[in-house]
Amino acid sequence: MTRRPALAVVGATGAVGTVLLTILSQRADIWGEIRLIASPRSAGRKLSVRGEEVEVVALTEDAFDGVDIALFDVPDEVAARWAPQAAARGTVVVDNSAAFRTDPDVPLVVPEVNAHAVRRRPRGIVSSPHCTTLSMIVALGALHAEFGLRELVVSSYQAVSAAGRAGVETLRRQLALVVGTELGTCPGDVRRAVGDDTGPFPEPVALNVVPWTGTLCEDGWSSEEMALRDETRRILGLPRLPVAVTCVRVPVVTAHSLTVHARFEDEVTVDRAQEILATAPGVVLYDDPAAGGFPTPADVVGTDPTWVGRVRRALDDPTALELFVCGDNLRKGAALNLVQIAELVAGEESSAVPRTTP
Amino acid sequence: MTRRPALAVVGATGAVGTVLLTILSQRADIWGEIRLIASPRSAGRKLSVRGEEVEVVALTEDAFDGVDIALFDVPDEVAARWAPQAAARGTVVVDNSAAFRTDPDVPLVVPEVNAHAVRRRPRGIVSSPHCTTLSMIVALGALHAEFGLRELVVSSYQAVSAAGRAGVETLRRQLALVVGTELGTCPGDVRRAVGDDTGPFPEPVALNVVPWTGTLCEDGWSSEEMALRDETRRILGLPRLPVAVTCVRVPVVTAHSLTVHARFEDEVTVDRAQEILATAPGVVLYDDPAAGGFPTPADVVGTDPTWVGRVRRALDDPTALELFVCGDNLRKGAALNLVQIAELVAGEESSAVPRTTP
Repeated sequence: MTRRPALAVVGATGAVGTVLLTILSQRADIWGEIRLIASPRSAGRKLSVRGEEVEVVALTEDAFDGVDIALFDVPDEVAARWAPQAAARGTVVVDNSAAFRTDPDVPLVVPEVNAHAVRRRPRGIVSSPHCTTLSMIVALGALHAEFGLRELVVSSYQAVSAAGRAGVETLRRQLALVVGTELGTCPGDVRRAVGDDTGPFPEPVALNVVPWTGTLCEDGWSSEEMALRDETRRILGLPRLPVAVTCVRVPVVTAHSLTVHARFEDEVTVDRAQEILATAPGVVLYDDPAAGGFPTPADVVGTDPTWVGRVRRALDDPTALELFVCGDNLRKGAALNLVQIAELVAGEESSAVPRTTP
Repeated sequence: MTRRPALAVVGATGAVGTVLLTILSQRADIWGEIRLIASPRSAGRKLSVRGEEVEVVALTEDAFDGVDIALFDVPDEVAARWAPQAAARGTVVVDNSAAFRTDPDVPLVVPEVNAHAVRRRPRGIVSSPHCTTLSMIVALGALHAEFGLRELVVSSYQAVSAAGRAGVETLRRQLALVVGTELGTCPGDVRRAVGDDTGPFPEPVALNVVPWTGTLCEDGWSSEEMALRDETRRILGLPRLPVAVTCVRVPVVTAHSLTVHARFEDEVTVDRAQEILATAPGVVLYDDPAAGGFPTPADVVGTDPTWVGRVRRALDDPTALELFVCGDNLRKGAALNLVQIAELVAGEESSAVPRTTP
């Protein structure tokens, strides 16, 4: 019998960390020890995983002793400092921050799309894409494999939980201010009610949509728009794919949605696109508008797959499809993809280096 | 001195009717009598316009006696029946329903873009576009006049007030159910809380986005998606313009937003696009992301112009621009455009047929 690999969860007390522990408790259990690591101020707390209470330990170099694989969900600067240290001690790091997503020596992996990429990891680090990319890429990857993607135009409807607990609390606080009022009908009334209490967002998000996520890059682009373009190109292996994106925050707690205009190499049909999506691993086709069938965040939250509906062929271009795509930004958009990558690494290690107990 | 034209407001008690009376009270007053018309059950109510109380009269043939121009905001079937009757009695009808928007003998007019079209109206009816089209077309028309539009990909973020008072009440009722709860975090929890009380929408709209507006057309398209394509082509005079649209409802009370990917005949620059938008009548450029400057519904509600921000040149196509556009769906999206068309007609009549009082 092979030794079960030891797993660490770094950032176990955060919004994604909480979902990680849920997912690790739900999936087939291939792990030996699961060690929970967080900042020193959370050390000593007890969290439940696989039905057991586990005490959180502080993030130190020694915390990685005996850990085969570590899932990191921590701020970029914490990942940039600690992931290489863990890797230097022989732990494979699966990182959810932006710190390594553009590093050519760190593969950016979505198991349903480019599982093969996980094997070449010269820095001992594997990166997981941004939640917005992950909320659409499995469906797009399936269509690309058959039709050959030529161009993307994407708009997002991003949930507040992607900004962590503070994002959710901000929306709930703002909603409490607007409920039972006539707010939302006069210029600036929501802004006056909310005041400076916009939390992690640049503008009020209750009764509003905010065309900004991330930080400012060159020429007016936001970091999340650039990330969606760069990551889609890397994951699909299409380094020159034209990608136009506008990212928008909406007052939804969890589950990102995206509208996608995708142009392919040749003519496409809706029937074949629906067949591909209905059978692709990790994708649910929910496309029956006559019966009110299309995905919304309210359907999708708490589920694993990428949901796709509103599949139409562009009326003026037989090579293009229009889609509405929806995925849980905390599950496939973050925690689930980390766990899937870790399972890939664990499977590869156990098959490459069979170890027997005496 | 010329006789001041008499105006009628048909549908005076509705959501758009209410905004019509506000706008008529705010703009330069060129009107003689303003007559308020509604369904028989509203007859006898008194509404305020231009600081005076006016009694609502029932919609009958005689209601149009002596009326030069009538603004209609009523259901499609009511407009289809009554607009031709009013026109037959010599009243110029300016209609906000979908009943005549595709009729080649009824001009579809946005005064900032195609004012000239108002003069050819063989049926005596002028049509005003759908609120989603109106929320972007003034900005697009200005860019088209300089750059020459070649292709559009649009996604919408549509407010609930476009579905009338019932839309607003539905959102407020649903928000009251979710405030102070953890709803929005588990599969189907918002749906269970809301039950069948989805009002005019096919799905819950609080803490959700719904990729459906309008009725089902062929091949999975919605009527509002088809309208945005057809109307944009008519207004800009580009009958073969490729237009790809996905329409989505969001939990915003008033002001539609749209992301726009617009491809033009030749290379464009952001500087020139910003100059055009900053000087175009009816457009406000609000594009300073470094200082948090971009339009949101909370800024735009209650204002007249089309607001534009997030102006970027596509990274992979020097002929394409990305925009975020936002407009009040009840003002420019409905009531204001009706009043502007009526003012055009009134001006043309007074200059073409000068009448003097004895």
